[in-house]
This record gives sequence, C-alpha cells and structure tokens, in this order.
Amino acid sequence: MTSELALEFARKIRAREQAVGYWAVLDAPVATERIGRLGYDYVALDAQHGLLGYSGVLNGLMAIDAGHTAVGMVRVEDNNLTAIGKALDAGAVGVIVPLVNTAADAAAAVAAAKYPPMGGRSYGPMRSALRIGPVPAEANATTLVFAMIETPDGLANVKEICATPGLDGIYVGPSDLAIAVGGAFPGDPAIETEFNAALKTVAEAAASAGIAAGIHTPAGEVAALRLSQGYTFTTIASDLTHLEQIAKAHLAAATAAVTTKD
Amino acid sequence: MTSELALEFARKIRAREQAVGYWAVLDAPVATERIGRLGYDYVALDAQHGLLGYSGVLNGLMAIDAGHTAVGMVRVEDNNLTAIGKALDAGAVGVIVPLVNTAADAAAAVAAAKYPPMGGRSYGPMRSALRIGPVPAEANATTLVFAMIETPDGLANVKEICATPGLDGIYVGPSDLAIAVGGAFPGDPAIETEFNAALKTVAEAAASAGIAAGIHTPAGEVAALRLSQGYTFTTIASDLTHLEQIAKAHLAAATAAVTTKD
Amino acid sequence: MTSELALEFARKIRAREQAVGYWAVLDAPVATERIGRLGYDYVALDAQHGLLGYSGVLNGLMAIDAGHTAVGMVRVEDNNLTAIGKALDAGAVGVIVPLVNTAADAAAAVAAAKYPPMGGRSYGPMRSALRIGPVPAEANATTLVFAMIETPDGLANVKEICATPGLDGIYVGPSDLAIAVGGAFPGDPAIETEFNAALKTVAEAAASAGIAAGIHTPAGEVAALRLSQGYTFTTIASDLTHLEQIAKAHLAAATAAVTTKD
Amino acid sequence: MTSELALEFARKIRAREQAVGYWAVLDAPVATERIGRLGYDYVALDAQHGLLGYSGVLNGLMAIDAGHTAVGMVRVEDNNLTAIGKALDAGAVGVIVPLVNTAADAAAAVAAAKYPPMGGRSYGPMRSALRIGPVPAEANATTLVFAMIETPDGLANVKEICATPGLDGIYVGPSDLAIAVGGAFPGDPAIETEFNAALKTVAEAAASAGIAAGIHTPAGEVAALRLSQGYTFTTIASDLTHLEQIAKAHLAAATAAVTTKD
Amino acid sequence: MTSELALEFARKIRAREQAVGYWAVLDAPVATERIGRLGYDYVALDAQHGLLGYSGVLNGLMAIDAGHTAVGMVRVEDNNLTAIGKALDAGAVGVIVPLVNTAADAAAAVAAAKYPPMGGRSYGPMRSALRIGPVPAEANATTLVFAMIETPDGLANVKEICATPGLDGIYVGPSDLAIAVGGAFPGDPAIETEFNAALKTVAEAAASAGIAAGIHTPAGEVAALRLSQGYTFTTIASDLTHLEQIAKAHLAAATAAVTTKD
Amino acid sequence: MTSELALEFARKIRAREQAVGYWAVLDAPVATERIGRLGYDYVALDAQHGLLGYSGVLNGLMAIDAGHTAVGMVRVEDNNLTAIGKALDAGAVGVIVPLVNTAADAAAAVAAAKYPPMGGRSYGPMRSALRIGPVPAEANATTLVFAMIETPDGLANVKEICATPGLDGIYVGPSDLAIAVGGAFPGDPAIETEFNAALKTVAEAAASAGIAAGIHTPAGEVAALRLSQGYTFTTIASDLTHLEQIAKAHLAAATAAVTTKD
Ligand SMILES: [Mg+2]
Ligand SMILES: [Mg+2]
Ligand SMILES: [Mg+2]
Ligand SMILES: [Mg+2]
Ligand SMILES: [Mg+2]
Ligand SMILES: [Mg+2]
Repeated sequence: MTSELALEFARKIRAREQAVGYWAVLDAPVATERIGRLGYDYVALDAQHGLLGYSGVLNGLMAIDAGHTAVGMVRVEDNNLTAIGKALDAGAVGVIVPLVNTAADAAAAVAAAKYPPMGGRSYGPMRSALRIGPVPAEANATTLVFAMIETPDGLANVKEICATPGLDGIYVGPSDLAIAVGGAFPGDPAIETEFNAALKTVAEAAASAGIAAGIHTPAGEVAALRLSQGYTFTTIASDLTHLEQIAKAHLAAATAAVTTKD
Repeated sequence: MTSELALEFARKIRAREQAVGYWAVLDAPVATERIGRLGYDYVALDAQHGLLGYSGVLNGLMAIDAGHTAVGMVRVEDNNLTAIGKALDAGAVGVIVPLVNTAADAAAAVAAAKYPPMGGRSYGPMRSALRIGPVPAEANATTLVFAMIETPDGLANVKEICATPGLDGIYVGPSDLAIAVGGAFPGDPAIETEFNAALKTVAEAAASAGIAAGIHTPAGEVAALRLSQGYTFTTIASDLTHLEQIAKAHLAAATAAVTTKD
Repeated sequence: MTSELALEFARKIRAREQAVGYWAVLDAPVATERIGRLGYDYVALDAQHGLLGYSGVLNGLMAIDAGHTAVGMVRVEDNNLTAIGKALDAGAVGVIVPLVNTAADAAAAVAAAKYPPMGGRSYGPMRSALRIGPVPAEANATTLVFAMIETPDGLANVKEICATPGLDGIYVGPSDLAIAVGGAFPGDPAIETEFNAALKTVAEAAASAGIAAGIHTPAGEVAALRLSQGYTFTTIASDLTHLEQIAKAHLAAATAAVTTKD
Repeated sequence: MTSELALEFARKIRAREQAVGYWAVLDAPVATERIGRLGYDYVALDAQHGLLGYSGVLNGLMAIDAGHTAVGMVRVEDNNLTAIGKALDAGAVGVIVPLVNTAADAAAAVAAAKYPPMGGRSYGPMRSALRIGPVPAEANATTLVFAMIETPDGLANVKEICATPGLDGIYVGPSDLAIAVGGAFPGDPAIETEFNAALKTVAEAAASAGIAAGIHTPAGEVAALRLSQGYTFTTIASDLTHLEQIAKAHLAAATAAVTTKD
Repeated sequence: MTSELALEFARKIRAREQAVGYWAVLDAPVATERIGRLGYDYVALDAQHGLLGYSGVLNGLMAIDAGHTAVGMVRVEDNNLTAIGKALDAGAVGVIVPLVNTAADAAAAVAAAKYPPMGGRSYGPMRSALRIGPVPAEANATTLVFAMIETPDGLANVKEICATPGLDGIYVGPSDLAIAVGGAFPGDPAIETEFNAALKTVAEAAASAGIAAGIHTPAGEVAALRLSQGYTFTTIASDLTHLEQIAKAHLAAATAAVTTKD
Repeated sequence: MTSELALEFARKIRAREQAVGYWAVLDAPVATERIGRLGYDYVALDAQHGLLGYSGVLNGLMAIDAGHTAVGMVRVEDNNLTAIGKALDAGAVGVIVPLVNTAADAAAAVAAAKYPPMGGRSYGPMRSALRIGPVPAEANATTLVFAMIETPDGLANVKEICATPGLDGIYVGPSDLAIAVGGAFPGDPAIETEFNAALKTVAEAAASAGIAAGIHTPAGEVAALRLSQGYTFTTIASDLTHLEQIAKAHLAAATAAVTTKD
C-alpha cells in the first residue's frame, strides 16, 4: 500500500473523521480486491473468526493494496506480540484487537504494535517495509491500534481503556456486547435498552478521550445509524453472510417460476 | 455426494424437469458450502473463467457435498479427456463443456466423459468412487454432459449438436452468444431481437431432441424468465459479481450518512 | 455437519456409550473423507502434532462432513481461546485439549470452548453456524471438551480435572503418559505395570465423575482392549503411520520375487 | 534428487532389471516422503487420476528426493509438451504417459520428453537442473519415457509402440485394459483368460523390443506375480486405497468390542 | 492493474519504444511485488517452465498490480484458448506464447487472446474486468500477444510470423534458439556466429513488420547489449537463478573467514 | 534430513566450531532447496517475521533436506510449547527463539524443545521421526536451542541466559539490538560504539559459558567480520532482500541503454 493512503487514513481516524469499511472473512483475494475498489475507506480481514490463515491475511492485504483505494486492516486472533506483529509485517495499516478487558490489555496491544521505545515489536518489516522507512519510531506513527469492547469487563473499564497511551480507538463487537449486557443472542430485543446504553457509553468514552469509536455492523443502514450516533467508523459485514443473503434472494426470485413436469 | 442426490438430479434433468443452480467462480469452499445449502439444485464451479485451479474444484465439490442438498457440476476449461476426466474424478455430477461448435465437438465431450464402450474415459475414480460402484458402464448413467452453445458455429449447428448420442443437454453462454449474433458487448440492446431469436432456436432444438436446455443468467429474475421461455435449467451467477453488487449497495446505504468533520 | 449427527454424538459421549474414532495427521481431505465414511463415530484431526495448519483443519472438517457419517473433532495445538475458538468455528464438534495439568487448565479449556455465561468464547460462528442456531447458550450444549491426561501433574490431578464443570471427558495420550510414569519411550515394557495402573486410575476417575474416558491407540486390537478396560471412546491412529505400515508390508510381499538380471 | 540415484535407476530399467514402486495419488508430501524411504525403487505420482495439481507434483517430487532412496516418476495427465515438460522440469526421472494408442502417440511422448535434436522439449530446467548438467542432449539420457497400454488400439499396436525410438518401456493400466478386452469392470472374472493373454502379449512385445515392461498392481502379492510373469517393474497402489483398507480393518478389529450401554 | 499503466505499456510496445522487464519463476508473490516496484516496465511470470501453477499466476499478477509501477505479463504454458484465456482473465496485460513455429501458430495465439470478431476468446473477465470496460473489442486493444521464436521452424518462418495480423511482437527464447541453430547447450561458443546471425534475423524481421522484438536475457548487461542491437524489449531472468547467484556469492565472502577449531 | 547431517551439525555447534547459514523468509521451497545445496551449513526459516505459515515451514524443511547438504533451522514465532514443538516436529534441527529477556525465558525455550524429563515437549514426532529413534531422551541430544539477544533486558541478562541448562547458544538480532542500545534505526551510526560493545558483551558471555554465539548479518562480508570477532555462527540474510538487491542492480545495468524513441 502506498504511504499516502495509509497516512491519510491514519490522519482521518485520529481526527475522528468518519470512515466506512468492509469486513472480509473469506480467503478469496480477488473478491477482496474488488470490494476494496468500491470506495470503502478500509477493508478489515478477520483473522480471529474469519476463514483466513496467515496466507489468507497476506494475500488479502496484497489484494486490497492492488485496488489502490482502500487500506487494509486486520482483526487479529490474539492480543500478543506474534499475532499483532505478523499482521503488521504483512502490511496491515492497523489492528483490531479482540477481547480487551482492561487498560492493561489495551496497553499490551499497543506495546505489541509499536517499536521501541513505545512498545516491544520486533523489527523485521516484510510488506510493511514497502510503506515505512527505516526508522521504526516513524513507522509507529502510521500504525493504528484499536481495542475491542465486547465483554462485561471491557464495558466496565472502557474509560480506562480509552485512556491508554498510543491507542487510536476502540471497536465494538456488537454480538458479544449484546451477550455481555445480558442478551440471549446477538440482536436479542429483550436487552435493546441495555445494549443501546452500552453503545452510548462506549461512544462517549471514546469522544471524551479524543480517540475514534468504531463498531461492526451487519448492513449499510445500520452503519449509517451508528455514524449518526457518534461512531467514527463502522465496518459492514461480512462477505460470507452477504453472499449467502444475495444468493438466497436470487433463488427466491428464480424459483417462483420453477414448475415440476407432470 | 450421495448417490441418491446424483441419481435424482440426473433423472430430473433427463426428464426435462426444471432446475435452478448457482455459479461459483471463487475458490472459497465455505462460501460454496453455504450457497449449496440454500436450496439450489446444483452449484456449478467454473474452471474455465473462474478463479479455480484443480484444488479449488476439488475442495469446491467437497464443500457442495458437505451441504448434502445440491449436486456439484463443473464448467470445464477445455473439451478434452484431461479436463473432463479430472472434473468427474473429483466428484462432479456433470460437466458443462465450453465452445462446442459442431456435433463432432459434442461427441468428443461425451466420449471424454463416458467410460468404454460409450467413450474413452480412463478408469481411475477418486471422489467419484464414493458414488459409483465398480462397473464403469453404470457410472456412465449418472454422468451428465452439457455442450455450450455460444459461438456462431455452435448456433448454426445446434440441431446436430443436440442429436449427439449421450449428450444430456445444451447450455447457453449468453455473453458470448450476444457477441456471436453481432452484439458489441454482452447485453447489447442493438441485437436484442437476434439474441432472443437465438435463445428460442436453442431452446427449441433441445426440446425437439428431448434433451435439456440450460442457460446462464445474472439474476433470479432473468432465471425465472428463461424458465418461462422453455429453458430446463438456469444457473444464476456469479458469487464474485453478486458479492461486488451487495457490497456496493451497502456502501451506498452507509455513506449517505458519512460527513467530514470541519 | 448436520445437527443430528452432532447431537447424537454428544448424547452418546455424555451417556458414556462406547465410540471409536480415527486419528488423522495428514492434510489430505479426500483421504479423510473416505475414512470418515467407513463407520467410525468420529475422525479427530490433530492440530498439535499433525501436519495440519488452519486450512488443513478447515478442509478436513468439511471432508468429514461430506461423508455424512462421522463427526469431526480437533486435537487443538494449545489450551487457549484462539486455538479452541478457531477449531470450533471451523465446525469441530469437540476439542481434545493437550497437556492439561490441573483443574484450572481444564476450566480454561471449558471456558475457551463455551459462550458466556458458561465461558468466554467470542461469538463469530463460521462453519459452526451451519449447525447451531443463533443462541450461543444452546450451541454450548453441542460442543464437547476433552482434557488430555498425559503428564505427571495431569495424572496426579485427574480427579480434580474430572470434576471440572462443563468438561465432557478426559483423553489419555499414551506416549506422553508412558514417559510421565517413568518410561524411557512410548511402550517401554519396563514400566508396563505403572502404565496400566495409570490407565486404570484415569478410567476410574472419569467413571466416578460420570464423564467419558477416551484414549489414543495405535491399532484396532488395542482399541478393543481399552474399551474392554472401561474406556468410553478410543481413537485409532494415525493415517500417516498406518500408511507407512501398509506400504511397507506390500513392499515385503512384492520384493520376495524381485531378482537381479544376471 | 541426486544424479546417482537417477542414473542408476535409468540403467536398471534399461537393463530390464526388476524394480518395484509405489503409487501415490494423495497430495500429502510427508506421507510420500516416508513411503519413499521404505526401500521402493521409485514412487510414481499420479497427475492423471490422482489428487495432485501442479504444486502437489512439485512438492511430492521434493518429498521423494528428501528421502534419498527412491526416485520420483510422474504419470502425466496428457500426452503433450506441456504436461510432460512440466513434470520433468519439476524433477521427475521419468514419465508414464497414458492412453497411448499408436506408435505415433508413443513418438509424441518421446518427443515431448527429450530435448532437440531427439525431441522438441523446451529448455528451462527448474528442479531438473539440480540433477542434469547444462547439456540438454545429456539430460535426455537420464529421462525415462513409458507408454501406457490400456486401450484396444494400444494393445493391437503394442509391437509398433515398443519399436518407438527413445521409448524406455511400456506400462499396463490393468483397469482400463480389463475393460479394453471386454470386461464389465476392472477384475471382471469373465474375461480373465483374455486379460491374461493380453498381459502376456504386452510383456512379450516389450521383451522382444528389449525395453522394460511395467504394470500397475493393487498389492504386493500381485506385484510379485507380475514380476514372475516377466514384467520388469510394477507399481503397487495406491496410498488412498491402501489407507482406506487399513483404516477399515482396524475399525473391524476395534468394533468387535464396542457395546452400547443399556 | 490500472488501465493507465496497461494502456501506456501497450502504446509503448506498439511504438517500438524500449522496455525492460524481469522474469519470475518463483511462486513468491511478496518477492514479485517488490521486484515490480523497482522500476521495471513489466514483470513476466513464467507459467511454462516456471514454478507457477494457476494460483501462482493469479497471485503473482495481483502482487505486480499492488506495486502500481510495472505491468504483468505471462509466458503461457501452451498455445491454446485455455492457457491464454486463463492468463488474460487473471489480469495479464500480455502473453508470451512459446514454440511458435509457423504463421498459423502465431495466428492461433492471436485468436486465443482476442475476443470476436478478431479471435475466439470466450468472454468471462475476472481480474481483467478491473481494467477493461464491458466492450470486448475494446479489451482487444489493450491485450498484447508475443510469439516466441526459439525453434528451427520458427526461425525459418520468422517473416511470416511477424506478418500475423494482431501480433504485437516476437520474443526470442535464447536457450532453445541456441540449440535450434546447432548448439550443444545454451551459450555454446561453437555456434556464436550462427546465434548472433539468428538474433539479427529476428530483430530485422520484427523491425520490417513494424512490431516489437523482445528477448530473454540472463543479466542486465546482456539486456543492454540486446537493446543496443535493435531489440525493443528484454526480460532479465530469473528470480530463481539470481537468488542462487547472490546466495552463492555471499557464502564465498563469508567462508573466507571460517576456520575449524583445533 | 539424515541423522548424520544433524548429528554433525549439533556436534559442530556445541564444539563452537564456525558455521555459516542462510536466512529464508520466502515460502519458495525450490529456491530454498537450491540455496541449501550451495554449501551453507544450515538454512534458517523465519517463522516470526518471514512470509512463512506452517506449510511454508514444513515444505521449506523438506526442501532443505532434499538438498542433503545443509540442515534446517527455524526462527520460531513465539517462545512457547506450540510454536517450538511444531517447528521441531516438522523436522527442524534447532530453533532460534526470539525476544528472550531473562534466564526464565531461556529456560522456557529449552523446556519447550526437550522431551521429559529435561523439558515438557509432547511426544508426536512427524518428520522429526525420520531422524530420531523412538527414545525421546535421545532425541533431545540432537535438538538445538538458541535464545535471541535483542532487547535491553536480554542484553542485561545475557550471562544468566547463557547459563541456562540445555541452551546451545545465543543469537543476536542486530536490528532490534541496535534499537535496544539507543539507536534510532538498524545500523544507526550514532550508536556504533554502544552496538559494538554489546556485540562484544554477547560474544564473551557465550564464550564464558562455553556455548555458541550466533548472529544475523545482511551480507557475507559482515558474516566474515562477525566470525573474526568471535561469533561461532552467522546467518546471511535474507532471500527477499537479496533478490531485491540483485534485481535492482540488473535493472540499473540494463537501463543505461534504454532510450525512448523520438
Ligand atoms: Mg527481533
Ligand atoms: Mg487409464
Ligand atoms: Mg468477539
Ligand atoms: Mg523455450
Ligand atoms: Mg464462453
Ligand atoms: Mg502429548
């Protein structure tokens, strides 16, 4: 990815300007490349729940860069040096770190993503070297770190998490957050009030701390709603579920006409 | 794939009962598996224009079979023993053979798909052995062969092609057929009349020969139209273009709300 | 995999009914598919010592499901949220967790495999969504967790481990257990008494706790023996060693006849 | 592969000394490596019916070479420059070319495998360069070419095929040959006499021409029989069917003991 | 790849302006991406002799496009619709077609690369759709076709080959050409005169026909020489041999200092 | 890999005899195989920063073994049982463990690499079984463990780290070490004195402890220098950067001659 796109995206997020991304769980680089060219600000590759091993992340980031329009982010599978370092070395502009429960978790995420003295990332840029120069500390400036708020502890500690030096934003995982506030399943209407209160709490914590608030959404309409509610960036997801939806809709349209010979 | 699904699908096609399939060009088996569970009669993997090498076809067929609902077909990359044999050995119920221009081409496709004495397929079942018994001639009965009509020659020779012994159906490639009848591009409105006449010619040739007429379509609505026009089966396509469409639509819905901070 | 197979397997294991599985270390989905159709209750994919990366596990589980006869389990590479979550998201019915030394280790394994409030698994079903409905707590009911007993500590703490809420069984790794009781190598006859005593201790601990006792075995005869000794389920292993054995035996049979021209 | 192994194997085959090989259809390099270390003279990778794409062939040949005991051969998927050239460039010592019906087919196979002036192979050694020096004509000397006899035409023309300059041997595909002599399926007892006569015809044709006669066999005992009947080399096959057999046998041994709780 | 780069490269080649490319045989997309950013006009992926299957070509072209500097070409493995169509669908700007012996061979290459009415390419753009619009005839304008001159026949027929309508250039395979003019091996000094005469013949034939003359070279110095001799474009090759050379040189530099302890 | 090579390499390292290796970050087994045949004592595959997932490490080790000249090592991605166990099971002779800060870290690395009673490695040899016999304790003797010194803490604790029982050597990561001693970037001339002092401290600590001192270097000349400064072994690196360098140099040589038509 060119430096320009990455720098501009980092600037935008840190200025809390609104951004919209797409969420990819498929190891299907050509599809990811096409989506990356549609005008989304970023495409996030899901290495936690998605169907992407290391080569899927690597090829996916290359596919996004081939589109030359969006930047690539990775939702890493774990909050440690290895998972975060490999995603960044592969060329991700930023990492979304799951299951951050405390400020210490958030600090660990930042430390894993930043070179010394800011953090403990080991130096060995691969695709990231295409973008950053030889000065690690300067590379830190273009690396974004987001902590996921999706557990009861994370929600309780959201202010402290937002205060973590070097953290660029928080990111709501709405399915887990719904369960965290007592829902029986994602989207459980029984806890709608609590869920919306939690969303507000998170957005306000980020705003107070002056960092970005991001959130996952299933559809463009929900993304628009979240942006109107004060969220800085939203990811629409995912390629797998969208593909299933559209294939189902076309089957319904087609089969209205199918008859069995008799 | 279980024998039952394959046998029933072969029976259905040969009885000219209507069927609807989905067209996959992505090497994304989990997506293919999901689509295969939606109720489509078959999923066709495109080894000609699709993004599928041999392992993509193999994994895709396994994914379809894991769904236990649809059967797997392959649009092979070439009309020869190797391409057709590998697709069938990998477990495809049938092959869609591109660029069939003459009855001799159609006969070659049949010969490649059938064991002696009907054809010249070499015996070495791999995944196909899970379905067929040890008698090659019986395996022939469950293997479907479709010849694509998509060139000026193919259109001119459609009757002779339909008369090919062992051929189970013909299959229209509408993009190439539009160009074949003089269009400047697929869907060119300037040749709508010629295109529709060609579609009619093909469907009638199949009907006269008592074999199935299939056609590729971009959407469920078009599929319904083709079925109403006498086509036996239609494939809706493709995962790649559908995914691009839906991702684009969600972006539009989301970005209505995006504002730039000022 | 269909819900029915998974539910029935979970019921069987929890009822301590006997089951036999096969152990796969090869990333060879078509072979795994075939083995899965032979009548084994389950096929276990070894992500710890086996030759399977993430894509191997994913394709292997799909292959087992394509056989529609056995369920797929995964021996995970690590006792943490990431390894266990990814195996389950990929469609495994259960996980075999290595190197469980204490009840705390066992509790961590359960927590990683279960959605809140029972555990801390993050919600993002991929292939597992094909089987479970949208209610995470219900998904917990069909997810099996087994703790491996294979170290001195694990053996010493086996009762406490068996008492772990949510644990469905324990699983003996006989190679490591032989070394744990003082053997110089797996199968060391010098510690046969200690080894058999350990096997008995483990089986009885499971029986007392009312959970299943599983064990790895190299051959069907040993599997039969272990079942007769009170083990609930046994896995026969592995495709790699079996293939080596049979290829060696056929070479011996063939080369009796080879002569050198003179 | 070292030159020594390749040179010695070529010498042996051309001297009509007996050799035994193993037939691999699985893309499972570690298994192939192990089998290659058991003492087989060669391992043949099946790119026609096997589950091996290009990368499977490449990795399989490397695996065989890592064993440093057997040489690697490839049964190519087609009788043309591309298929034969790619197998040899990947490091195969020889190619088994399917469906050779005539002396012209055999000559085409030789031409595809040999550099000018002997043939038309294009120069671009990749792994083969590790073995051969820079002189293409010398490389020709270590490249083995076998024509498969497996069709009625091939059987009828076997003498002319054997007389093809540069051909190192013929190779019987017994399944197809059984069908070619009128069998309803491979191993059909109804045509045992004709099949055995055909085997004799082929072996004698090779002996008369002074080239090697090879044959595929399902088991070591059959391999021993064929060697005693005058065949020079036999391949025992395949890893997939052997693995299925042994897994089935172990299940039978285990399940004798399985009881259902009641 | 952006249209602009492709269009400019096509213009440049057709204007016989000089260009320099790099030759990749490794399936190592990140390396290919880096090389593509060094300033080469194009990177050619070798699907004939190179270590690249279909996925290697696809990922390699994406990697080149991610660099946004060079365009991607493919030396296809065969002169037919399938090989040429798949390379172009995967996003190649042009194809280098091996072993062109006659004007008929060259015409077949052009026909395979161009949509009707110019040729017989089937319509199904995948990555190529990112670049071309929906009008196939317009896509033809940005697709380059080069015929390799590397055999005695090709050399004899070079004028007729150059006269093929739609052919954009010829391309010398110097290893095969050296053998074609009687050399015992590539670079054989014994045929230096004949080889240089052949190079001149080819370059003049292209110049007379007004099409580009390309040639493969092992090193930048040779590339410079060929450009000075009238060649339009040269590819420097290959990543595999270059890597071997540099690794060897560094070992020599290092081992001067290695001593054995005594 | 054969036992002989592994045993000899282990002996050499433990005797502090000098050795030179090559550093591979590309998942390009044929390139790795070639480099492994050049005379290097070992090839190290980088699973931390390199472009290698699990299958890349597995295939890379097989490629090195196919060369039969060098042994394969792995720089693992993490200091835990899983990462170290998988690398060794895949056939690595030794592991280079990153980011070792304390003697406890070093002890953990040893424990992960050694079978009981020396450590806690689980028994399940895969490719390593080709080399070692059935006695785990004997396998320990051929397994090398190196701790990376590359952080301020690691440097401060180098003596204690070197005293770790079972540790075979330490290994300097010069990029991170340069930053650790206050450099702004790898090779920062501003801290040359501190860097050289640190190199001396590390080499002396290893010498005092009687274990090997290894170091990464970018070029053969630097490797020679480090060996002359008392380092036991040095790795020259990497294939990716070397390939980029040589491709750049050849472009410069070629483009001197390129002219634009006018
Ligand atoms: Mg480091
Ligand atoms: Mg055959
Ligand atoms: Mg979550
Ligand atoms: Mg050539
Ligand atoms: Mg078409
Ligand atoms: Mg164990």
